[in-house]
Amino acid sequence: MFPLPEPMRLALDAARRAGDAGEVPVGAVVVHRGAILAVAANAPRRLHDPTAHAEIQAIREAAAVLRRDRLEDCDLWVTLEPCAMCAGAIAHARIARLYYAASDPKGGAVEHGPRFFAQPTCHHRPDLYTGIGEAEAARLLRDFFAARR
Amino acid sequence: MFPLPEPMRLALDAARRAGDAGEVPVGAVVVHRGAILAVAANAPRRLHDPTAHAEIQAIREAAAVLRRDRLEDCDLWVTLEPCAMCAGAIAHARIARLYYAASDPKGGAVEHGPRFFAQPTCHHRPDLYTGIGEAEAARLLRDFFAARR
Repeated sequence: MFPLPEPMRLALDAARRAGDAGEVPVGAVVVHRGAILAVAANAPRRLHDPTAHAEIQAIREAAAVLRRDRLEDCDLWVTLEPCAMCAGAIAHARIARLYYAASDPKGGAVEHGPRFFAQPTCHHRPDLYTGIGEAEAARLLRDFFAARR
Repeated sequence: MFPLPEPMRLALDAARRAGDAGEVPVGAVVVHRGAILAVAANAPRRLHDPTAHAEIQAIREAAAVLRRDRLEDCDLWVTLEPCAMCAGAIAHARIARLYYAASDPKGGAVEHGPRFFAQPTCHHRPDLYTGIGEAEAARLLRDFFAARR
């Protein structure tokens, strides 16, 4: 087995922490010019914020650190295919590259449902890399939902 | 001319303030059981936050006040058709009714582009009311972009 790239390893660690806290286990990392800039875990329940998906948290933190609202020189690594809200935020932020681990047929909006980045009204499409860390990301989600049944 | 409902009047006031501050003039209001709970203006530049659309700001504020991540007993009033990010947030928040003034063929995701609430993967669809305040909302946007050209 090949070692995972550092950003995906950190995103999976964040996903695990989310799951331990009772949140759906998803994690995200923003990388700015090769350096880790933000690491975030899914936390809508804990934060009382329906928008607090891992991607949104990581993008907001990175933008706050850089003191601007566009992240053209940043990449986003996330353990699950982004939903419509997060795909929209990725486009607004002008994220350069999007890496996600597991696909999400139920709520994903990249290869499923709205297929947001393929819409003519989408103003920015990141380069896409999928499947890195997929097995571990999917296992975290499966175990989480199995334990809740 | 009929008077506008109070929430849309407040959303239009917020949109005007956004425009005066150099942000795209969009405003949003969350109403909880008939009472105004949150009023927000579009502010991604000022806040260094690409997710800081009026709808996201209003939803986050309302959820923080109510200390929960679902707003089933809340309505959202916004001056412009929500984008994919905001439509996704509206679904996650379980907003009961969505009222928007002007439609947005370029970036809207309700009647345009991804048509998010019509997707089978959309987990919650608010009741929709459109066109209230449309002329004023559209005029604010038109004047804003005309002044920038």
